[in-house]
Amino acid sequence: MDIVKGFPATSQDHFQLNVTNIIKQAVQSFAKQEIASRKHDGTIFRYTYGDAYNRMGKLANALKELGVRTGDRVGVLAWNTHENYEIYFGVPGMGAVMLMLNLRLAPPDLSYVINHAGASVIIVDETLLPIAQAIVSLCPNVKTFIVITAKSIDNFADKLPNVVSYEDILAKADSQFPWPNLDEKSAYAACYTTGTTGKPKGVYYSHRNVYLHSCSIALNAEIALRDTVLQIVPMFHALGWGLSQASTMVGARQVFSGMYTLDKLGTLAELFVNEKVSVSAGAPAIFMPFLEYIRKLDPKPDLTGVRLLSGATEPPIAMMKGFAELTGAEVIHAYGATETTPLVTINRIKPWMESTISEEDRWDRKRKQGYCVNGLDLKVVDLSENPVPNDGKTAGELLIRGPWITGSYHEAPGSEAQFTADGYWRSGDVATIDEEGYVKITDRVKDVIKSGGEWISSVDMENEIISHPAVLEAAVVGVAHPKWQERPIALVVLRPEGRGKINVEDIREHLAAKFAKWQLPEAVFFVDTIPKTSVGKINKKVIREDYKETYASQTEIPPVGHSRT
Amino acid sequence: MDIVKGFPATSQDHFQLNVTNIIKQAVQSFAKQEIASRKHDGTIFRYTYGDAYNRMGKLANALKELGVRTGDRVGVLAWNTHENYEIYFGVPGMGAVMLMLNLRLAPPDLSYVINHAGASVIIVDETLLPIAQAIVSLCPNVKTFIVITAKSIDNFADKLPNVVSYEDILAKADSQFPWPNLDEKSAYAACYTTGTTGKPKGVYYSHRNVYLHSCSIALNAEIALRDTVLQIVPMFHALGWGLSQASTMVGARQVFSGMYTLDKLGTLAELFVNEKVSVSAGAPAIFMPFLEYIRKLDPKPDLTGVRLLSGATEPPIAMMKGFAELTGAEVIHAYGATETTPLVTINRIKPWMESTISEEDRWDRKRKQGYCVNGLDLKVVDLSENPVPNDGKTAGELLIRGPWITGSYHEAPGSEAQFTADGYWRSGDVATIDEEGYVKITDRVKDVIKSGGEWISSVDMENEIISHPAVLEAAVVGVAHPKWQERPIALVVLRPEGRGKINVEDIREHLAAKFAKWQLPEAVFFVDTIPKTSVGKINKKVIREDYKETYASQTEIPPVGHSRT
Repeated sequence: MDIVKGFPATSQDHFQLNVTNIIKQAVQSFAKQEIASRKHDGTIFRYTYGDAYNRMGKLANALKELGVRTGDRVGVLAWNTHENYEIYFGVPGMGAVMLMLNLRLAPPDLSYVINHAGASVIIVDETLLPIAQAIVSLCPNVKTFIVITAKSIDNFADKLPNVVSYEDILAKADSQFPWPNLDEKSAYAACYTTGTTGKPKGVYYSHRNVYLHSCSIALNAEIALRDTVLQIVPMFHALGWGLSQASTMVGARQVFSGMYTLDKLGTLAELFVNEKVSVSAGAPAIFMPFLEYIRKLDPKPDLTGVRLLSGATEPPIAMMKGFAELTGAEVIHAYGATETTPLVTINRIKPWMESTISEEDRWDRKRKQGYCVNGLDLKVVDLSENPVPNDGKTAGELLIRGPWITGSYHEAPGSEAQFTADGYWRSGDVATIDEEGYVKITDRVKDVIKSGGEWISSVDMENEIISHPAVLEAAVVGVAHPKWQERPIALVVLRPEGRGKINVEDIREHLAAKFAKWQLPEAVFFVDTIPKTSVGKINKKVIREDYKETYASQTEIPPVGHSRT
Repeated sequence: MDIVKGFPATSQDHFQLNVTNIIKQAVQSFAKQEIASRKHDGTIFRYTYGDAYNRMGKLANALKELGVRTGDRVGVLAWNTHENYEIYFGVPGMGAVMLMLNLRLAPPDLSYVINHAGASVIIVDETLLPIAQAIVSLCPNVKTFIVITAKSIDNFADKLPNVVSYEDILAKADSQFPWPNLDEKSAYAACYTTGTTGKPKGVYYSHRNVYLHSCSIALNAEIALRDTVLQIVPMFHALGWGLSQASTMVGARQVFSGMYTLDKLGTLAELFVNEKVSVSAGAPAIFMPFLEYIRKLDPKPDLTGVRLLSGATEPPIAMMKGFAELTGAEVIHAYGATETTPLVTINRIKPWMESTISEEDRWDRKRKQGYCVNGLDLKVVDLSENPVPNDGKTAGELLIRGPWITGSYHEAPGSEAQFTADGYWRSGDVATIDEEGYVKITDRVKDVIKSGGEWISSVDMENEIISHPAVLEAAVVGVAHPKWQERPIALVVLRPEGRGKINVEDIREHLAAKFAKWQLPEAVFFVDTIPKTSVGKINKKVIREDYKETYASQTEIPPVGHSRT
């Protein structure tokens, strides 16, 4: 889409949207605002925006002293702490690029990311030293390790080469740093995606991207000066969903959760209550066990008015209801991905819907991914790339563009197909969009069955098969068909009482209540187990490979299915 | 300040921050949100964001049909109505530049603005036809007048040349318009400043400027989807302070006040109550009489939780208290100018001040202009351009820079001095800044007395003279002095009972309690009246001219003053 130049304006458009301006301006107005950070010993460290800014200046000077230059990549293996907050502004502020490292990655993937990005320095928390040790021999280009620790650096000298202490180098540095006026299109940070196929791919966020995303997070989560924001989402996951930059922009009080693990739910409850948290964000993977923990507390923590942004997956209704009833907190679903910084949609019930929506519909609607936030442009398109009707039923692939969406993967040949000619990123998610603009993700594009130019949702079909009383588990995948491109097959695990009593036609008849005849799987296989991945998801890649010959010899509409058990 | 390029990011930074993207994205998510507009007959017209967007498309097509091209300037003489809202997006969206015309300007100034900007089309509300008629012969380059009226255009054919009806041209046009992807640095609109000296000067706002200012207004006024925002500030004053664009960005409900005059305060009260307004903005010039109107109402309107942004001048404490006590509304002072789009500072009491601030200090503090909003960079500098200490006492000139501050006046030779080499706009306001970053405007630079390298506030000195029981009025200006650059003179109007009893030394002694000896005026003139401007302000320009010879023959510290009455 060509950019059209109009009459020249006189605005100061040369002023750069970089994160140094975010923090400088926050300190100008909110120097005395508090930041609280949970240390590894469980105590709370407290200081102010002004103190943090001084240490950001020290960090920038120290990195310069270590030889870090504009454009160099600095890896970060850290928890949600005030040091990580300093890194968020100090590292990109001096012109380097922050490479956020996922501490759950295995050493081969982690070293691949470090080497692909070309990081020369790694900042590592002392508790994560084993990870650094595991990759050191695989990453010969890393010149320096900076350890975040309160102990003497002598304790680490034999564990890593060229190791210095974060506190030592800050102690020696000046707090005044001549922050460069960074081009807003310069890289601020990189996160690598960890898809199920292929190597991790690098998403490089610009300063402008982060600046505008911060505005959007603050506007949509309604973060203001009076709020206290708790950082639970790991700061290496899509920049911690942007909470700390957005909070800085409006001068909100910030709390960092520290070394956070699922066996410390009591700590989380304490932080919410003691620090008077009003906003936080996380995935159901953390909020579900947290709610279960709360169920056992007496009295329950009062979280009235607290907004919990829930992402990663659809929030279960029971979870949303549980938080509302037991604590008064509102769970608000938002959707995004590493490639989208991440905010794309947020789900608030619109004021004009309030008077007519039933209680049941409200919860059902709150599970949707929500409407597009201002700043972005999204559409759901069919296989011919035409937008589907906003009927809440017709599914297509969700495409997204805007200033905080990635436009390419860094040096990843072959990844160009994930972008359209007119600048949209293909999310890989199958979605519907309703008359009010609420998006609902129904499947992954790679899992949906493309048959005769139409799509069949594998997830919907699995759910319908499982609703049969004799069925324990089901998996549906598409496999190649010479005439129809793909046709569905179903793998079904029967409950013990159903074995031998249910046949292929029973499954097809059950499905016929919800699916058109052409959508029904011809082949249904009764199996003992369904292949799973290491994290317990159905391994559709393996199933597709195992069953790829199912329809290979068929050239017409295939006959009704068969069983191989 | 050189822009430093860093490592390239992969973000979609080519995505333009133009207002077409604001409205498109709002319609994508909030098509059914309501817009209410008060018509000239007092009834309320209602439609939706979706309806407005269709009419914006029609307007763009109609303008194209009339020959308007990218970069052309389109003058607007209109009230706060839904048509003006359509103009706000339809005119700049199609690539033209909206020239907002102040309907209070006299024909010579108005025609100067139209001719200087080179407007070829004027959109005029039917009630403002006399203004258009008064300038038509002065503006030969205006090719077309578009009248906003529900009547037949035949009624206007003999009143203006080349006249068409807004509704007629929209009725004939298609609602689908191929909105260009406008460069974010293109002009969105122009407003001309109307200073007391020289000709009006043009400030051209870019799309990017307006986009980022909208984010800032929404963040700082905390405008959200659930709000109803009433547009009282005329939309020709610094883009109506950005409320309508900010509201659009978050999908808030909008109410336009229509043809609003001070004799219709009942209408205003009705709009607040009937439309359940939660946010509005205006000057004390409107809020003061509105409060007096409310005082007489029984019962008082319940405006609990309503945020009233008050600008233009310092809000009187009595006004802020009055709204709080009688209605529950909170007056929030914000500061800016035409050159700043306008938001620069906003005054909220910071959370960490709440526990220690006394009731009296709270009101006193709320009169300050407030702290700098994120996105901007401000400083207060002394005569050597060095920042003054943040002590709330030392005054200097307020300098501001950022993406929504003007960088120059359009084709205004000689105006370059209003900008510093490092990109700040000189506000012309004298200010102090305190340890919490709150700015307080104390004077205008042109009115402050520059004596021996130091500043003396004319406003402070006037207030102190007026506090003398025998004094009715006072004016203090600086006039040229051969040795000290300037020295103050005071004009004093005595109350009848003080005449003949008070002399120059009495005034100097009274001032000595608050001012240093070197600051005291040598010359004090007892006069019958003080020259005023047409809007009732002290006309310091005239006083300076009349008294310019006062110290002309003095080369040392001058002798104690004299009187010429």
